[in-house]
Amino acid sequence: MTRTAASHADEALVAAMRRALSLATHGPAVGENPQVGCVLLDATGTVVAEGWHRGAGTDHAEVDALSHVAGAAGLTAVVTLEPCNHTGRTGPCAQALIDAGVARVVYALDDPNPIAGGGADRLRAAGVEVIGGVLADEAAELLRPWLTSVRLGRPFVTVKWASSLDGRAAAADGTSQWITGTAARQRVHEQRAMHDAIAVGTGTVLADDPTLTARGDGGELLPHQPIPVVFGETAVPVDARLRQHPAGLIELGHRDLGAALADLHERGIRRLYVEGGPTLASAFLRAGLADEVLVYLAPLLIGGPRVALDDLGVTTMSEVHRLSIHRIETLGDDLLVVARPRDTPTPAMKD
Amino acid sequence: MTRTAASHADEALVAAMRRALSLATHGPAVGENPQVGCVLLDATGTVVAEGWHRGAGTDHAEVDALSHVAGAAGLTAVVTLEPCNHTGRTGPCAQALIDAGVARVVYALDDPNPIAGGGADRLRAAGVEVIGGVLADEAAELLRPWLTSVRLGRPFVTVKWASSLDGRAAAADGTSQWITGTAARQRVHEQRAMHDAIAVGTGTVLADDPTLTARGDGGELLPHQPIPVVFGETAVPVDARLRQHPAGLIELGHRDLGAALADLHERGIRRLYVEGGPTLASAFLRAGLADEVLVYLAPLLIGGPRVALDDLGVTTMSEVHRLSIHRIETLGDDLLVVARPRDTPTPAMKD
Ligand SMILES: NC(=O)c1ccc[n+]([C@@H]2O[C@H](COP(=O)([O-])OP(=O)(O)OC[C@H]3O[C@@H](n4cnc5c(N)ncnc54)[C@H](OP(=O)(O)O)[C@@H]3O)[C@@H](O)[C@H]2O)c1
Ligand SMILES: NC(=O)c1ccc[n+]([C@@H]2O[C@H](COP(=O)([O-])OP(=O)(O)OC[C@H]3O[C@@H](n4cnc5c(N)ncnc54)[C@H](OP(=O)(O)O)[C@@H]3O)[C@@H](O)[C@H]2O)c1
Repeated sequence: MTRTAASHADEALVAAMRRALSLATHGPAVGENPQVGCVLLDATGTVVAEGWHRGAGTDHAEVDALSHVAGAAGLTAVVTLEPCNHTGRTGPCAQALIDAGVARVVYALDDPNPIAGGGADRLRAAGVEVIGGVLADEAAELLRPWLTSVRLGRPFVTVKWASSLDGRAAAADGTSQWITGTAARQRVHEQRAMHDAIAVGTGTVLADDPTLTARGDGGELLPHQPIPVVFGETAVPVDARLRQHPAGLIELGHRDLGAALADLHERGIRRLYVEGGPTLASAFLRAGLADEVLVYLAPLLIGGPRVALDDLGVTTMSEVHRLSIHRIETLGDDLLVVARPRDTPTPAMKD
Repeated sequence: MTRTAASHADEALVAAMRRALSLATHGPAVGENPQVGCVLLDATGTVVAEGWHRGAGTDHAEVDALSHVAGAAGLTAVVTLEPCNHTGRTGPCAQALIDAGVARVVYALDDPNPIAGGGADRLRAAGVEVIGGVLADEAAELLRPWLTSVRLGRPFVTVKWASSLDGRAAAADGTSQWITGTAARQRVHEQRAMHDAIAVGTGTVLADDPTLTARGDGGELLPHQPIPVVFGETAVPVDARLRQHPAGLIELGHRDLGAALADLHERGIRRLYVEGGPTLASAFLRAGLADEVLVYLAPLLIGGPRVALDDLGVTTMSEVHRLSIHRIETLGDDLLVVARPRDTPTPAMKD
């Protein structure tokens, strides 16, 4: 349905959906709820109100937009995600749109959530015209982490590492400060702030005693701090800096990645940033549990034994982990390659 | 002198030098002689003739340009390299310009060759106005391999390898076909054709039995074939495909890189393309004998033992080999990173 609907949707609806997608990004990338934006159009296609979702416990985008108009009778609501049909901390948006007298609802993505879904049906049953699938690909790209976590019931996993051009994470003696330059390191802090949690192995904790906070370029703590999660059986030392982390500390005490992800999902973690070291990053990749791969490549050659990834379970070429390059960023003298596993496509729409 | 001269040179001279640099690239990138272009201007700055050097034994660029005019009295010759002062297979260009009655000579780069140099002085002594250093940086970039070989008395060395994003050149069982895609592999053939010789270690010869020819995308042999050079003590098998190479075969029979480069230079080889394997490439890098590094990165992860580079003699971070990225190309799904050692700057001009 999506492609056909999109080609039928007139230009004004597509433009309004682009605006709604842009509004959606004002909401937090972290937390259990998706980023959603909404615009209300009058009969001439003019925008009369805008709204977006600011995170769990606050108004959904549709309700936020409706709060800015005295009445919505006859208006078109353009929203990036199918209006929910679920009474949670807030009432179902589908009902709020019906009650406000909205004549038409245009949305991008079907709600994949079995609990929240069914909003389109409820709207249609109340006589509201409904068009789904407008700019669905753009919305799916924006919500890729959230959609992945809803569909797989585990956090979206980003595996990140930094290496020389020849794939080394450290010199032979273990020194690795600094492989990448300041711009790349600052980008890592930004990325930490866009995740709910950061994963490291006990090896990194013992070797580096990292703080794993998300900091600005003046060293100040950023508003959102991801929770550090330590994977492995070894105990985190009592005097480890991680114990002072402002978001707390999750010490798993085991190596079972599947169980750990289920546990973290249960705790509300939807985006996990795996920062290493090589053993843990390789374990995630080997298990097919990386949804996005971020490789920071520094213009150096190091050689020697300290590879950034170790065994990936590949014995012959037909078994290699194929990626598709999503984006390449230049950060000072370094490169950031953003890639995705070839066998983990962007989650498709439900229909 | 160069910067000042360049800023004094008027726009027409700079434009003419750009044209001369572009003509220079029509000449062969391989062989003992540099790529040189020349433009003759009349008093109004109009181009009246063009020339370039087509390789050893043929006319130099100035003589080629002069051959297209009946008389050159009062003209300005704009040439990318200081006119030579040397009677080799052809007469000295400085004298040819004087004999033709050229009034002014503008050139980009001083001739670094102790035998051929001195052309500017001879011209001045004959009353010709001489301006050097116009677009000297561009000319130095074009002639970087030739300048390097003249100054160091050894071939310019390009070290190339292909790896996964995690720095592996093969899967654990040794299979490596194909890490990169067809566009990247075709680019390697183009690069082979721009070098005088290709270096491989005996390990690669025994493992892969490569042909090391430069082929077009239809599999046909390209006009210029670089000579394969095998580094190492092990004999090349009597039935090795390399023995059928159209350009012949140089079997060194030893591992001494310095002696090998001197020997190859003696044989007229100015540009050497080191294709591996990991042991030989690492040896060149470790010895500081790489002037350019070409890293083909494929969007795959392989992990495991088969690293594309092994030991580079680096024990701690302060010893890493720092590169500066010169260019990045996208070739199909692959990336080509063209980099240069930080401690081997672009050869500076003589002055
Ligand atoms: N370049 C980079 O991007 C980067 C990033 C981070 C760290 N590093 C460097 O990496 C080095 C540490 O390397 P590392 O590989 O030892 O560190 P690591 O991956 O942080 O820790 C490895 C440990 O994690 C535990 N673990 C948890 N789950 C596991 C699983 N599923 N499979 C295997 N092990 C699991 C194991 O310890 P238990 O015995 O406790 O279970 C294992 O020994 C440090 O020198 C650090 O500086 C580099
Ligand atoms: N990914 C790529 O870009 C790429 C390119 C080429 C090859 N390969 C793969 O690489 C594998 C072969 O690897 P390799 O490292 O054994 O091959 P190699 O580098 O071609 O050969 C190594 C041998 O070269 C000789 N050698 C010559 N000069 C040397 C020096 N200065 N220092 C050390 N050794 C020197 C030594 O043999 P002697 O005992 O005979 O002296 C040494 O064992 C093959 O599987 C091939 O497919 C990959």
